[in-house]
Amino acid sequence: MRSPLMSGSMEHHMRSCLALADEAATLGEVPIGCLITDPHGRVIARSHNRTRSQHDPTAHAEILALRQACAHLQVARLDGSCLYVTLEPCAMCAAAISFAHIHTLYFGAYDPKGGGVEHGPRFFQQPTCHHRPHVIGGICEQDCAQRLQQFFLTKRPQSPA
Amino acid sequence: MRSPLMSGSMEHHMRSCLALADEAATLGEVPIGCLITDPHGRVIARSHNRTRSQHDPTAHAEILALRQACAHLQVARLDGSCLYVTLEPCAMCAAAISFAHIHTLYFGAYDPKGGGVEHGPRFFQQPTCHHRPHVIGGICEQDCAQRLQQFFLTKRPQSPA
Repeated sequence: MRSPLMSGSMEHHMRSCLALADEAATLGEVPIGCLITDPHGRVIARSHNRTRSQHDPTAHAEILALRQACAHLQVARLDGSCLYVTLEPCAMCAAAISFAHIHTLYFGAYDPKGGGVEHGPRFFQQPTCHHRPHVIGGICEQDCAQRLQQFFLTKRPQSPA
Repeated sequence: MRSPLMSGSMEHHMRSCLALADEAATLGEVPIGCLITDPHGRVIARSHNRTRSQHDPTAHAEILALRQACAHLQVARLDGSCLYVTLEPCAMCAAAISFAHIHTLYFGAYDPKGGGVEHGPRFFQQPTCHHRPHVIGGICEQDCAQRLQQFFLTKRPQSPA
């Protein structure tokens, strides 16, 4: 669902994700930022896309943040935690978010071309999805979308994928 | 599609994946094995599930093999490579296989509960999937399925997920 109102902590965390997205862009990585909070609201992981620098097609911001949070807590599931990310997760990340038992997913821009939550496979709506997080999309949507549009216009005009 | 015939190298590689699955089982991990061959047919990555020992919900056999192969070649895409795995990949792994530009996916057992190729999201059939590998399923199907059935019956009777 779209965010009905912009609560302070939601916007605060999404602004932190935008700062991480900016860091990614300076490294030539797709500007997507992500963070995870524990059930007490403490930030336990921060990441951005690193597919190019790490030579790793799975190094999306969400995957890196999930691995970081699980390593930090020495668990394979993050029940009660929330994940914030500037772009609607793809199917790979949506499935990983489900496997990690994330309580609530907050995302910024919608992604009709590659999204896996509100588009394409709509993973959380599938019978093969066994943990469905709450989902709130559209947080700081304009700012999140602009980061990506700007990046592909100026840095990688021939490579929008 | 189901495998029309059992070519020697397909079966040989799937038997290697079954040996990796057996290694996983001895460690208390879900017995799923995976390997990747380069365009010349050389094996460049071998892995099995490690979600428990690595405290990592993304540590499926396929994800680990893709990361290993990309690290080995220092690339983020594996054009012309083939991936063999004992179980139909989930949505997370199917998307990762697509992102890595795997040429052909060979899998063993079908997975109606959690598969993302022939079940549920059917990722490769979505408009948000931008690289579709060839897919051949059902290789050594009985042996692959039996490994998993046996594991869940004897090792983790209360935890089939």
